[in-house]
Amino acid sequence: MSYYQKLEQHARKLSRLGHLSAICGWDQAAMMPSGGAEARSEAMAELAVIAHELSTADYLADWFEQAEQEQLSDAERISLAALKRQWMMHNILPADLVEQKSLLGSQCEHAWRTQRKENDWEGFKQNLIPVVNLARKEAAIRSKATGLSLYDALLDLYEPGMTSEVLDGIFADVKSWLPQLIQDVQNKQKNEAVLPLTGTFPIVEQNALSLDVMKLLNFDFNHGRLDISTHPFCGGVSTDVRITTRYDETDFTSALMGVIHETGHARYEQGLPHQWRDLPVGQARSMGIHESQSLFFEMQLSRNIDFARKLAPLAQKTFNRETDSALTAENLNTINTRVKPGFIRVDADEVTYPAHVILRYEIERDLIEGNIEVDDIPEIWDRKMQAYLGIDTKGNFKDGCMQDIHWTDGSFGYFPSYTLGAMYAAQFMAAMKKVVDVQAVITSGDLSPIFTWLETNIWSKGCTLSTDELVKQATGETLNPRFFQQHLMARYL
Amino acid sequence: MSYYQKLEQHARKLSRLGHLSAICGWDQAAMMPSGGAEARSEAMAELAVIAHELSTADYLADWFEQAEQEQLSDAERISLAALKRQWMMHNILPADLVEQKSLLGSQCEHAWRTQRKENDWEGFKQNLIPVVNLARKEAAIRSKATGLSLYDALLDLYEPGMTSEVLDGIFADVKSWLPQLIQDVQNKQKNEAVLPLTGTFPIVEQNALSLDVMKLLNFDFNHGRLDISTHPFCGGVSTDVRITTRYDETDFTSALMGVIHETGHARYEQGLPHQWRDLPVGQARSMGIHESQSLFFEMQLSRNIDFARKLAPLAQKTFNRETDSALTAENLNTINTRVKPGFIRVDADEVTYPAHVILRYEIERDLIEGNIEVDDIPEIWDRKMQAYLGIDTKGNFKDGCMQDIHWTDGSFGYFPSYTLGAMYAAQFMAAMKKVVDVQAVITSGDLSPIFTWLETNIWSKGCTLSTDELVKQATGETLNPRFFQQHLMARYL
Ligand SMILES: [Zn+2]
Ligand SMILES: [Zn+2]
Repeated sequence: MSYYQKLEQHARKLSRLGHLSAICGWDQAAMMPSGGAEARSEAMAELAVIAHELSTADYLADWFEQAEQEQLSDAERISLAALKRQWMMHNILPADLVEQKSLLGSQCEHAWRTQRKENDWEGFKQNLIPVVNLARKEAAIRSKATGLSLYDALLDLYEPGMTSEVLDGIFADVKSWLPQLIQDVQNKQKNEAVLPLTGTFPIVEQNALSLDVMKLLNFDFNHGRLDISTHPFCGGVSTDVRITTRYDETDFTSALMGVIHETGHARYEQGLPHQWRDLPVGQARSMGIHESQSLFFEMQLSRNIDFARKLAPLAQKTFNRETDSALTAENLNTINTRVKPGFIRVDADEVTYPAHVILRYEIERDLIEGNIEVDDIPEIWDRKMQAYLGIDTKGNFKDGCMQDIHWTDGSFGYFPSYTLGAMYAAQFMAAMKKVVDVQAVITSGDLSPIFTWLETNIWSKGCTLSTDELVKQATGETLNPRFFQQHLMARYL
Repeated sequence: MSYYQKLEQHARKLSRLGHLSAICGWDQAAMMPSGGAEARSEAMAELAVIAHELSTADYLADWFEQAEQEQLSDAERISLAALKRQWMMHNILPADLVEQKSLLGSQCEHAWRTQRKENDWEGFKQNLIPVVNLARKEAAIRSKATGLSLYDALLDLYEPGMTSEVLDGIFADVKSWLPQLIQDVQNKQKNEAVLPLTGTFPIVEQNALSLDVMKLLNFDFNHGRLDISTHPFCGGVSTDVRITTRYDETDFTSALMGVIHETGHARYEQGLPHQWRDLPVGQARSMGIHESQSLFFEMQLSRNIDFARKLAPLAQKTFNRETDSALTAENLNTINTRVKPGFIRVDADEVTYPAHVILRYEIERDLIEGNIEVDDIPEIWDRKMQAYLGIDTKGNFKDGCMQDIHWTDGSFGYFPSYTLGAMYAAQFMAAMKKVVDVQAVITSGDLSPIFTWLETNIWSKGCTLSTDELVKQATGETLNPRFFQQHLMARYL
């Protein structure tokens, strides 16, 4: 067996342990009674230890050195690079830092769950400071190993190849037109009639509607399921993707749009190249590209009148409300495209969402680079919310800088992926429209040509191309925020 | 850390891997779409390899030797013995035999699924012969290591301490009165009126009834769930017990009695001593004792008129059939206590079941001891079915000697556990009745005193006592088949 093959075998082993961890993690969120939690955590931790030992085994350095000398095909060389990146990511940090990060992170997150409710910034700050300090240490170590700047070394974990220099340019552009656009859209929508949903939408019926819409989106039920969990997510493994949702009996659209979003994530996973299933090269390209697929489904595909015309009859029939005028295609689409600046990122619409992300990006970048301190966050948060969205968050920490879970466990560098995803999604749709009559396809009810384009250009590529190369091959150019701007203007003005 | 503590830590590690395997195994049966099967098998096999490597690690022999020299408490010494037994069980067989057993077993089982349908004994025989030959080899190795006879060395895997000498005595006793009892019961029931169930019992309603009855049986829903699978089982882990059932829309009693059975298994698991959760000493005593708990619930507790009086109103209400005379307590109890000799063991009633088991025991014992060959099975099967149940199985292999899965993968020695369980259950009930007014307790609707007795005398003991000692402490004597006979005579004559 060649050294490359040994590395492949090793990666498959790790991937299989990851499989078990993913399924048990899904079970924990969707199935497990709470009394099972303690033993489950212990079991999951044991598996994590075994996986960590495997990932950091001494012999791997030698194997990589040997493998790099071997005669390899182009595909194998790309796979080897992906294997090496994964190995390095696991081995850069000293064990005690990893342990401390996990410890401080769970302490901070645990306390945050109460502190947020109590608007207790002073208390939260005490836990966040050590988390930030450790993240700076992590950034320094990663920066030294990769040659990237401090923040970029963290960003690289989620968006390989992306830098804050590029992001700064893109986001400066967005900031130059977004606040005005938000104003204009609100003015336009001011006099738009929207009928609110009334009454109850039973969970069993919402679930049936979700399954119907997943079918419309060609979700592969032979390789996945839909279930319920407190925090919706897309989990499991690519051969068996588990998506979850949470139903609100007074408003079926929130769960439904959530299911459509997770179905986008799921179809990306289901469409990954099966032959490399257990190898890094067969995984999703990046967090941003993953989000581009969920947002393609949720935003590009679903929040428009053509799709609403497919959705409305299904909803009317499922809820037995053929005559409810709130459930017409026009009204559902109006509900799904309302724009309203608000405090909370996860509740934000497509137009105001980027403002939430840019604000967080700017703060976390400056935090990690050491230009600001934790103490400065509330004041900066408030100033930027005023500037970007016209919203006052003074003294309101719980709906301000304490609203997200991301920083509590030290996941700095993640936020940009959300808006990168929205931009890639818009760019993919623009490219797709050159070869697919999207409107006609949606109207036909057989959406396959849309998914075939995504499968061919995105899903089947796995991790074989850099993000830039992937986007260039799919759309003719690398990331260009103009498509996103044009999309928002076309849809909302 | 002492060597005993090292062994404990090692066992906990193995137990945690077992936890993940149990949950993923449950998922496979109850949740997983079929497209996930291949990757799941690979992941489960990978975990099995890791667990096997841990179980057979070189250093363990030395650890056990050292631990045996250490100062240990009585509890630790018992635990050490249980640890050692588990370790030896894993290490007696050479790796190539284990591998071949798994290979031949799955080949035979896989082919059996079609061959059984086609009544193809000649084809099945070709696969069964090598399985039996390998089981004989296994028996020889285990016999040499344990000093037990060939068959007893396999029996010991499921019923530690039980021997064929004891079984022969017990079963000779049963055979002396059972055929006549079956005759007498049938004569008595000949003129009994029984109203068949009619119409449809929707699955959602059956599920609601199952949950109600599980509540009546104090199933701990904070440490377990009920779901659906093709082959009902009790799985998961003791902190999170997963039971499954399969619903038949024309007959709710089959699933319901199955749920009650699995609830018995589940409550045993839920009641095991928590402080030894991850150690062999904290596990169930034996397969026979496990089955005694499920059969206590299903047979001793539930198939009588007092329990039927609790069940009937629940069923009437759930199915909205307050006036259906098939759903009276009396009629449900008549349905639940019908005796009719039949071909199929898993469909057999409480009275005829032991005949099925004794027949299988006698055949598998003689097979393993080398007194008969695979070729002899159909003729012996037919002769014994005629003698014990008055049933002709000539030429009918699929409802005769090909009906069970047990022999296909070489699980010889398992069958006696079923009837041992029924006997222990009867003995436990007789002992319990000396201190608990079981009828009054059932009638009150709060069944806790019954479960407290079981918890105190059986569940909380885990594996700290030998089976004989456990039964003696609980009932005043070791296994005595007279209680089972008296139970059958009291209930059915
Ligand atoms: Zn997403
Ligand atoms: Zn059972």
